[in-house]
Amino acid sequence: MQLGLSFSDSDVSSFTPLVVLELADDTKAEAITWLLNRIRDKQQNGGAELLVNQLLFPAQDDQKSNPNVFVVGSTLQRLLNGAEDVGLFKEFQDGTMRGFTYANRESFKDFNGDGEGFLSDAECQYIIKHGLDTLRAKNEQHVPGYPKLKLYPGKSVVRRLQSKGVLIQYFPLHNKEDLKRLSFSWYKKFKLSFQPLDDIRHYFGEGLALYFGFLEYFTFALVPMALIGIPYYLFDWEDYDKYVLFAVFNLVWSTVFLEVWKRCSATLAYGWGTLSRKKAFEEPRAGFHGALGFNPVTGREEPVYPSSKRQLRIYLVSVPFVLLCLYLSFYVMMVYFDMEFWAINTYHENPNIATSILLFVPSIIYAVVIEIMNLLYRCAAEFLTDWGEPEILLFNFVNCFASLFYIAFVMQNMVLLRQSLATLLITSQILNQVMEAFLPYWLQRRRNKKVHKRMRRLMGDKELPLLGQVQLETEMNTYLGTFDDYLEQFLLFGYVSLFSCVYPLAAVLVVLNNITEVYSDAFKMCHVFKRPFSEPAANIGVWQLAFETMSIIAVVTNCALIGLSPQVKAYFPESDTQLILIVVAIEHVLLAFKFILAFVIPDVPKHIQVKLAKLDFDSLEALKKRMFITSNTCCSLPKQT
Amino acid sequence: MQLGLSFSDSDVSSFTPLVVLELADDTKAEAITWLLNRIRDKQQNGGAELLVNQLLFPAQDDQKSNPNVFVVGSTLQRLLNGAEDVGLFKEFQDGTMRGFTYANRESFKDFNGDGEGFLSDAECQYIIKHGLDTLRAKNEQHVPGYPKLKLYPGKSVVRRLQSKGVLIQYFPLHNKEDLKRLSFSWYKKFKLSFQPLDDIRHYFGEGLALYFGFLEYFTFALVPMALIGIPYYLFDWEDYDKYVLFAVFNLVWSTVFLEVWKRCSATLAYGWGTLSRKKAFEEPRAGFHGALGFNPVTGREEPVYPSSKRQLRIYLVSVPFVLLCLYLSFYVMMVYFDMEFWAINTYHENPNIATSILLFVPSIIYAVVIEIMNLLYRCAAEFLTDWGEPEILLFNFVNCFASLFYIAFVMQNMVLLRQSLATLLITSQILNQVMEAFLPYWLQRRRNKKVHKRMRRLMGDKELPLLGQVQLETEMNTYLGTFDDYLEQFLLFGYVSLFSCVYPLAAVLVVLNNITEVYSDAFKMCHVFKRPFSEPAANIGVWQLAFETMSIIAVVTNCALIGLSPQVKAYFPESDTQLILIVVAIEHVLLAFKFILAFVIPDVPKHIQVKLAKLDFDSLEALKKRMFITSNTCCSLPKQT
Repeated sequence: MQLGLSFSDSDVSSFTPLVVLELADDTKAEAITWLLNRIRDKQQNGGAELLVNQLLFPAQDDQKSNPNVFVVGSTLQRLLNGAEDVGLFKEFQDGTMRGFTYANRESFKDFNGDGEGFLSDAECQYIIKHGLDTLRAKNEQHVPGYPKLKLYPGKSVVRRLQSKGVLIQYFPLHNKEDLKRLSFSWYKKFKLSFQPLDDIRHYFGEGLALYFGFLEYFTFALVPMALIGIPYYLFDWEDYDKYVLFAVFNLVWSTVFLEVWKRCSATLAYGWGTLSRKKAFEEPRAGFHGALGFNPVTGREEPVYPSSKRQLRIYLVSVPFVLLCLYLSFYVMMVYFDMEFWAINTYHENPNIATSILLFVPSIIYAVVIEIMNLLYRCAAEFLTDWGEPEILLFNFVNCFASLFYIAFVMQNMVLLRQSLATLLITSQILNQVMEAFLPYWLQRRRNKKVHKRMRRLMGDKELPLLGQVQLETEMNTYLGTFDDYLEQFLLFGYVSLFSCVYPLAAVLVVLNNITEVYSDAFKMCHVFKRPFSEPAANIGVWQLAFETMSIIAVVTNCALIGLSPQVKAYFPESDTQLILIVVAIEHVLLAFKFILAFVIPDVPKHIQVKLAKLDFDSLEALKKRMFITSNTCCSLPKQT
Repeated sequence: MQLGLSFSDSDVSSFTPLVVLELADDTKAEAITWLLNRIRDKQQNGGAELLVNQLLFPAQDDQKSNPNVFVVGSTLQRLLNGAEDVGLFKEFQDGTMRGFTYANRESFKDFNGDGEGFLSDAECQYIIKHGLDTLRAKNEQHVPGYPKLKLYPGKSVVRRLQSKGVLIQYFPLHNKEDLKRLSFSWYKKFKLSFQPLDDIRHYFGEGLALYFGFLEYFTFALVPMALIGIPYYLFDWEDYDKYVLFAVFNLVWSTVFLEVWKRCSATLAYGWGTLSRKKAFEEPRAGFHGALGFNPVTGREEPVYPSSKRQLRIYLVSVPFVLLCLYLSFYVMMVYFDMEFWAINTYHENPNIATSILLFVPSIIYAVVIEIMNLLYRCAAEFLTDWGEPEILLFNFVNCFASLFYIAFVMQNMVLLRQSLATLLITSQILNQVMEAFLPYWLQRRRNKKVHKRMRRLMGDKELPLLGQVQLETEMNTYLGTFDDYLEQFLLFGYVSLFSCVYPLAAVLVVLNNITEVYSDAFKMCHVFKRPFSEPAANIGVWQLAFETMSIIAVVTNCALIGLSPQVKAYFPESDTQLILIVVAIEHVLLAFKFILAFVIPDVPKHIQVKLAKLDFDSLEALKKRMFITSNTCCSLPKQT
């Protein structure tokens, strides 16, 4: 809560503004009044009990500014109560993490005085978001002034307004001082150090902090592989015998890497209070449609998504769409092979510098086309379905690796595989960095300059920092979540693990990419995108499974590649059968070893397990005590039934 | 608690005897007095607060009876308090399962009046066992009268007495009326019906009830396989094409079978209150050695087993021992093959009825030897280490299946494989039934007659039913737990799944075996063995993993068998390579399918998940409330630090 905003704009608000709410500029006055009243209303009356004020622009403003911009804040009391509602876990006096309760606030470690500074900025904004999201219609038939914007009791107001375009957006404000401090310790000082994960979590929330933690961990984990890869590349380009060793190392590495990450992630999430937090007990997200029902766990009334409707959508819309896209992807691959062979033939007919450069052109074009197709698929999938992440993952995987699988196992051309792998990897890395950070940054700078110019023209020498900040951030792009960032790492992991034994330099390239990735991602979070709402996360979720699946596929492909290598084949000059049987046997042993390893390494470190068990134990003990109190109360009443 | 024992033996005890405690007949009087006092002493003084009385034999008894037999009982109040201590879960008013608390007893469903009949017999006995096990030494240096029987504060008294042979045994008494009712509904009426699992659980506890539930489920699950197997056996003995279909069915079956069992088991365990019960919160079992330490979860003082010592024992004792045993096992296998070839040669030289019977003799002898070796290994493993169950499992697996693997994949002799499989399966089934039920029954009957005769001689026409019952049950064999029973089913599952595509009749044989197994196991539990203490179990534990591992191995072996079949080979007359590659590809697809299936089917049914989540939610809410109370109490005191 240590907000550093100076409040010279006394006409704007009398509280620390944390969240900005932007309504369409033609919103009817009665709807605005109604919404503000509902936001300000007491919680027992079904309101959000938050502070909200309109951001007033100076009268001499030109037409372009939207007048319907509001800033939302909250009293400290409301925030602390909200922390209990959303189920925040905080460090208790005894060093364990416990669910925060207002009543018990004094027993938490960093709670001093009235609780100023106890909650981080990101947590306060999360609580306000939760308050807005759970603001539900009471008896209104429709939004005042909009007879077509139907409401029913329990419908999320914010969601309805957003889906109909009345509410354009709401987002948390940056805190300039904190941001300055964070960005300095994060990416501005050029010395070798770990990322300030706790600070990142403090500012952006657990979801994003876990992503950066994973990115760092993944990069460090790749370093030994990169170090082994360099001499392989430099000295023994064609010596497959040693690649066998490299492949085995690769397999053990990928298993241990993922298992140890689980432990790191559990340790981080425990310290951040998200490991023990139960997802199911949260209020439903505003994004859920559907009729109202009772949540069987919490007993709260909330919208229920009909599951059969969802099933139908999967079969009728998604499956044909995915199949169509996959067909297109394969078609493009075949075009690429035609180009490739044309280029090779041209080179062989007339080998000179121009044609040798031409050799790389098809792969580069193909890599660009792959990136474009991935992007198009994302947009189309989001348009058709709002839950298509597993499909996007699958499509990206097929799109990126289909050609490599084809070259490796159908064409069995290891030279082309190596060249294609290298070109795809390098091209996609360059494209990603440009698309992700530099392009948005350039656009953002252009916008910034425009806004600054207008602000200066408007205010002259009046100091209106809040107004300027809100204006700037309103026009920034919205960060769409960690999905794309994880996806990129997932595909890089694929390049490293699936075919690395034919191209050991892949790890080196990925390490180099990720070092710049940390900086560009950090920069884009701090300066290119709107600040995102914090997202409580206990682990990297479905990505753990995705990476593990990839590492299993990697065992199969690496074994097959080793079996295909001419050097290994030379050991079995008479029969392929024996070679294949041995390779298959080794593959099975490796897979079994992988599963045993995954089974033997505990997912959560011992000391965290103990703390979690202790929480469970205390909870159950408390439940017993509470039932005692309840039953005593019950007994004092005359019994009925 | 509805005990049906008639209490005419008024000189023996004035309470319902539930547990029998037998001390060595030369135990010193001061030790007995001390022990009884400790058992009777109040819990706040560190006693067990149980009722205990010596079982007095009539004066005219001959020398043979041990005078130091005691019966232990308890007041209802102590049992209800104990139910809370051991963390029993009972059905709450609202139909969910909740941890029982004495304070809140009125809110539980079947609690009427003073609570008579609320706890089952097995639960009462479990509570008494828990009370005895957790009876710990206070300041005694040694057991009175035995200066060598050292004690230290916190050492389990019962454990020390038992390890030094002073305490011979303690076991729960049968309840003749309940037993009569149970055995009637369980195995005495010959009509087709499910087993009375709830009654079994009521009488024997959850661990055993889950075993019988699994046995029933496994048998029913095998029926479709058996039905498909019969026509295969009758009509298409050598038609491998159709075996491919059978093998695929087998694979899908084994995966679905195990996944669905998890759901069944969760449903059963939820209804029995063991699913939500946390194992870690129980008092340590008396069996643990080691110095005293604090349990980090519960904060209770309890013995801690040094983990490094354990590791050392694994490497120094177990590994060489296991390797030696495996070597022996392989040696025996080689001897069997020699015998087998000798028999086959003899038959070929002179084919007649005698020599054709001779063909089966080696496998039968080998099967018997395998069973003997398994038994010897068990005894040796238990003597050397008291935690050797995973090794026993591994040794049994290798011992039973090594010869089959050798015949199938090294000798590639499908005719011998089929014959050997059939002989091993049938012989081991017959042997098991004899060893497990009929032999102990016969021995038991002989003992029974002797005891009855002596009793009649002793008492003449006096009615002393308790004395007689205790005498009888003291001499019954002790049931050593479900391990052997599960192991038998595990090996049967191996015979069915690993090689079933060459011998589809295996499922039929296993179904037939298991139908008699239900009866013989039920009979042996009710009349051959001492009643065992109930064992709270939420699932079949390590056996789930063991069965799943077996089903994965089954995929590999079945695919390999299909690849080896001459009919399949005939499709690829030119190259083995292509055949092997296709078989390997199919195997990989099947394995992937298996994992996806296991992933897609939820382990716990939805409605149970909701109830468990609700318990968690309520616990956390209660913890919040309780922290409130604690902090209020704290606040009323003057603050320090």
